[in-house]
Amino acid sequence: MTLETISTNKSHEGVQGVYSHASTSTHTNMTFSVFIPPHKEGEKLPVIWYLSGLTCTHANVTDKGEFRKACAELGFIFVAPDTSPRGPDLEGNSVPDDPNAAYDFGLGAGFYVNATKAPFDKHYKMRDYIEKELPEIISANFPADMSRQSIMGHSMGGHGALTIALRNPDRFKSVSAFAPIVSPLNCPWGEKALSGYIGDDKSSWREYDTCALIADGARTPSIRVDQGEADAFLTEQLKPSMLEAACKQAGVSLTLNMHEGYDHSYYFISTFMADHLNWHAKYL
Amino acid sequence: MTLETISTNKSHEGVQGVYSHASTSTHTNMTFSVFIPPHKEGEKLPVIWYLSGLTCTHANVTDKGEFRKACAELGFIFVAPDTSPRGPDLEGNSVPDDPNAAYDFGLGAGFYVNATKAPFDKHYKMRDYIEKELPEIISANFPADMSRQSIMGHSMGGHGALTIALRNPDRFKSVSAFAPIVSPLNCPWGEKALSGYIGDDKSSWREYDTCALIADGARTPSIRVDQGEADAFLTEQLKPSMLEAACKQAGVSLTLNMHEGYDHSYYFISTFMADHLNWHAKYL
Repeated sequence: MTLETISTNKSHEGVQGVYSHASTSTHTNMTFSVFIPPHKEGEKLPVIWYLSGLTCTHANVTDKGEFRKACAELGFIFVAPDTSPRGPDLEGNSVPDDPNAAYDFGLGAGFYVNATKAPFDKHYKMRDYIEKELPEIISANFPADMSRQSIMGHSMGGHGALTIALRNPDRFKSVSAFAPIVSPLNCPWGEKALSGYIGDDKSSWREYDTCALIADGARTPSIRVDQGEADAFLTEQLKPSMLEAACKQAGVSLTLNMHEGYDHSYYFISTFMADHLNWHAKYL
Repeated sequence: MTLETISTNKSHEGVQGVYSHASTSTHTNMTFSVFIPPHKEGEKLPVIWYLSGLTCTHANVTDKGEFRKACAELGFIFVAPDTSPRGPDLEGNSVPDDPNAAYDFGLGAGFYVNATKAPFDKHYKMRDYIEKELPEIISANFPADMSRQSIMGHSMGGHGALTIALRNPDRFKSVSAFAPIVSPLNCPWGEKALSGYIGDDKSSWREYDTCALIADGARTPSIRVDQGEADAFLTEQLKPSMLEAACKQAGVSLTLNMHEGYDHSYYFISTFMADHLNWHAKYL
């Protein structure tokens, strides 16, 4: 596996890099960003995974996330993958600049699943990419202590972070999310994506549904969610009360912080990013 | 004067807004951003002006500048104007998406001058816009204490901040810059821009040249400059040693901080943004 360095820039005394590689999971080139904080020669550092939301690439949080100062202070590696495979010849709504392309399916909307339905089953393997392939790349190429990992995400990426943490309880010390989709079984974004990638048998959706995973017995050590009350997607798509109910029913500890006036944007995420990183630091 | 609100988003307990208006200086619509920190009803707040560099709009620093946390803590209004007039029918290299357009002249490259050379003299009046028109708009529409203003900028915007501060010593308590152009008379960017906007008589360039203004007797209370040593434009375009020499010759106090490994990007700016805002706070 050859990693191509797209760019490196010194920032907050560390290095913000962007890298690309040929992925064995998606059979496309994949791009991701990694921030390496200042550290001692030979030191191994905890890893924070950040999964982005619909329409995003690695670049959104890298530009707007305001995570580097806190990561430099806490000594965290910060990894931001892309949200789907990309390429001009991909199936589905994946043609760049196609005005008929959907923002919530295909390109930029991989939903962190392994697609089983044609034609998406060829490339849309974001679950394998995040759970298996990219960790090996991070471990092999960066000063990462893989025994200390936590995961976070926004919206569709909050869904990704929560479901991946619940399916891999030994890998992640803690999981947090900004405005996550908590139940694809119960919102239009989820219905569209999972029926398109997985098919109509909803029993096979449950491993990609945070609330269903918890009801079915999956556990993760610690969950934190922050949600803006002025988020336009709150009532129809995100429904944090469903997560609250699932956690209460199952006896799972959840810290849910509602924030008056905040919306779904990076203006919200950047406000609470340092709080999330400091919260993860308690577990790492 | 009617101000159109493009967007407002709650961030860091304040409000990040983007606004547009018909400008009497440029005879175009102009867009700018303003961050209003949390404050008491009726309270008037100091104003930080941030002038951006070549190719930028208000959006670059608004997205990537990482200024909101410090402004919220310090109680600063943060104003980010555009870098030139814009519009499909503007003269010069001002046609959006024109592959022959220059990145360093015309659109996105107003250089904070009043152009006197046709055809640019019709619209390229960024000096009047920043010195006269926009302050009136800020004063009339936001809770600004106009007796407490400071100014900062990056690259071409550092040139703008320094020259505007030197020409208006009573208006600004302090001026700072990231990687500024310090002498358009002595660099290719400046030669191109000022000959294009002002003409070939270099004596008329001196009011737009930080080093020449200082040599000619202009003063401003306090100057801080931060410069990355890995900046690709350092030796040919920026030349901070010329500013050092001009300040030393004139007995002007200058804080010049050189930073090993940092380049010309927002990865550099965002690293030292809070330091600059805290430095301005000493004077405001």
